[in-house]
Amino acid sequence: MSDVLDLTRELIGRRSVTPEDAGCQALIAERLARMGFAIEHLRHGEVDNLWATHGGEGPTLVFLGHTDVVPSGPESAWRSSPFEPAVRDGRLYGRGAADMKGSVAAMVLALERFVTTHPQHAGRVALLLTSDEEGPTNLDGVRRVAETFRARGERLDWCVVGEPSSKERLGDLIRVGRRGSLSGTLTVRGVQGHVAYPEKAKNPIHAFAPALAELAATRWDAGNADFPPTSFQVSNLNAGTGATNVIPGALVALINFRYSTASTATDLRARTEAILDRHGLDWQLDWNLSGEPFLSPASGRLREAVLGVCRELCGVEPEQSTGGGTSDGRFIAPLGAEVVELGPVNATIHKVDECVAVADLERLPGLYQAVCERLLASRHAAPGSVRSLSPPGRRLG
Amino acid sequence: MSDVLDLTRELIGRRSVTPEDAGCQALIAERLARMGFAIEHLRHGEVDNLWATHGGEGPTLVFLGHTDVVPSGPESAWRSSPFEPAVRDGRLYGRGAADMKGSVAAMVLALERFVTTHPQHAGRVALLLTSDEEGPTNLDGVRRVAETFRARGERLDWCVVGEPSSKERLGDLIRVGRRGSLSGTLTVRGVQGHVAYPEKAKNPIHAFAPALAELAATRWDAGNADFPPTSFQVSNLNAGTGATNVIPGALVALINFRYSTASTATDLRARTEAILDRHGLDWQLDWNLSGEPFLSPASGRLREAVLGVCRELCGVEPEQSTGGGTSDGRFIAPLGAEVVELGPVNATIHKVDECVAVADLERLPGLYQAVCERLLASRHAAPGSVRSLSPPGRRLG
Ligand SMILES: [Zn+2]
Ligand SMILES: [Zn+2]
Repeated sequence: MSDVLDLTRELIGRRSVTPEDAGCQALIAERLARMGFAIEHLRHGEVDNLWATHGGEGPTLVFLGHTDVVPSGPESAWRSSPFEPAVRDGRLYGRGAADMKGSVAAMVLALERFVTTHPQHAGRVALLLTSDEEGPTNLDGVRRVAETFRARGERLDWCVVGEPSSKERLGDLIRVGRRGSLSGTLTVRGVQGHVAYPEKAKNPIHAFAPALAELAATRWDAGNADFPPTSFQVSNLNAGTGATNVIPGALVALINFRYSTASTATDLRARTEAILDRHGLDWQLDWNLSGEPFLSPASGRLREAVLGVCRELCGVEPEQSTGGGTSDGRFIAPLGAEVVELGPVNATIHKVDECVAVADLERLPGLYQAVCERLLASRHAAPGSVRSLSPPGRRLG
Repeated sequence: MSDVLDLTRELIGRRSVTPEDAGCQALIAERLARMGFAIEHLRHGEVDNLWATHGGEGPTLVFLGHTDVVPSGPESAWRSSPFEPAVRDGRLYGRGAADMKGSVAAMVLALERFVTTHPQHAGRVALLLTSDEEGPTNLDGVRRVAETFRARGERLDWCVVGEPSSKERLGDLIRVGRRGSLSGTLTVRGVQGHVAYPEKAKNPIHAFAPALAELAATRWDAGNADFPPTSFQVSNLNAGTGATNVIPGALVALINFRYSTASTATDLRARTEAILDRHGLDWQLDWNLSGEPFLSPASGRLREAVLGVCRELCGVEPEQSTGGGTSDGRFIAPLGAEVVELGPVNATIHKVDECVAVADLERLPGLYQAVCERLLASRHAAPGSVRSLSPPGRRLG
């Protein structure tokens, strides 16, 4: 059995910039098939998705990861080529080392070891991989797979996402939820004209200014015990053709809410639109809800298991955070799964000379395996598993 | 002597899109030289400027025009080719027919007729033409010529600008001044970041919003008897890279004041900067004063002459306006000249199927000639002329 460093190196060597998988999933599928996993390839458009399961009836623990990476930028800026893994001073360098080919390799190793040690484990263990996590839309990745799962009633109870959650030491932070993300493209219309004849025009920049000031100053909620307050940001604002003597006819703003469970998307939309109306604007807003907030409950079994593993195997008390961006966990949580994210230190992700400490990487399979043990090692320990109905024929390896 | 329609047609046939003159000035210079005008070509960069004078000591009446035109846009959108003059239903069609090759032709005809009728006229009559009026910067046009004039102490008393001033009937509006134009490129700096981590970023759009609302709501002055109130406009506002998950690091706004003589550029700058400071912004503003306001006094002799001509020859009481954009008159006024603008109806300028009524075009030389008559027909009538010092040797034709 290859060890986690070897497999991570092999994955980094595959130039899998979104939406390319570059053979990563085929490699992993082959390994897991050999261990008795049932393999399903769900290709949508240019995106590869892999669904590998082991076990039968009962609760399902799924490890969720992505094989795609963000572009490397100019390769000459790297100390060693981003797609040629290199170990220097105890660190493995390469694009995806931390986000998240190291986690993916660790999940594979953990699953191989777990089913070897516990061939008769309770419930199911599974791996879900996509090659479209880092792209702008994620349309054909886990979003699409989740639709399939919903349609066929796939049972998912617990989901460990391998995103690099740790800050300084492995296991010092786990994500127990994520804020929702609600985006909108706002168009404010005025009347185009010449700057010398303002009385014949209506400047949408001027009209929008007080509404913008109010939107920026609004306190949408106070957050709650689990989430920071909802945040509103205008990421892009554009008006004008470049001509300095023309009052523009319209303004376009891209807006985004990162919102806590103290607000709902419906409520935020209504309040935004009320502000635009109150300022008498001629507006249009195309909303896009890219992810609802989710939260692993404080007493959730997965959360308890991951906390216990971090305390025991990493010797740290993890921060339990709901901060940061979104993750593919947002597509799995609505299926009814408890979602927790645990992965390596994220200091270098998306940067030049991305790396992971080899010592951390080598401990990661043990962490994931320990989560499996806590939840599914014995059939007796797994609530919801119905022993008599488990088809032993699907237990291979 | 060619009539005004023929000369206008000849000028329209020359494809003189800014900064091209396409031979218009050479044609005119040749005609005026034949009539005894002293000719000076002032070429700066790609721009042709023509300075033609007739007469000697004493007050100078200059006609100011431009030979360049704005682009035609898709020629197929025109009923007839924009650079092939065509008369239909009493209108002459072609790019520049109204703005302002018709006026230029009329000025040439008026000057030819005036010096023919009054070979011993008082003072000087002159024509100043540029091929860089419609461009974005006008750096090498009348702006540069005015610098030369200032350096050599060129005497200019009265300036008739041929810009199409009329609204519905020839002579129904004259411009007796223009507002100043003060532009600025405003950069507001924030701190770039990820929308999911607003606490680590500072959004310059949000920071600027209340200041923008205040700038847009400010009443800069109330105008005065001659000018409408000062107007402030943001013509362009841009922030963001297109990425929807990035809080931009800076915002750029192009701003413009059209200001009355009730304010000064210095004052407007100071008040703008005070607002930016009061809102605690990290800002930078690059100002560009493209024209100070100017006003022909109510009792100005040129204003009286032009008014009289419109009343007598057009049978209308002209509106005396200071509205609209800037004109090259802004470079001549600071030399001490009284500036008044009179030209054809401006309904079609800068548009497809630009045209001028042939009847209006044929009356225009008479109007300009009448202005010459009122101001410079007889040496006795011309205040400021010193008869004994006029060098008769420069009176040709
Ligand atoms: Zn990732
Ligand atoms: Zn013009």
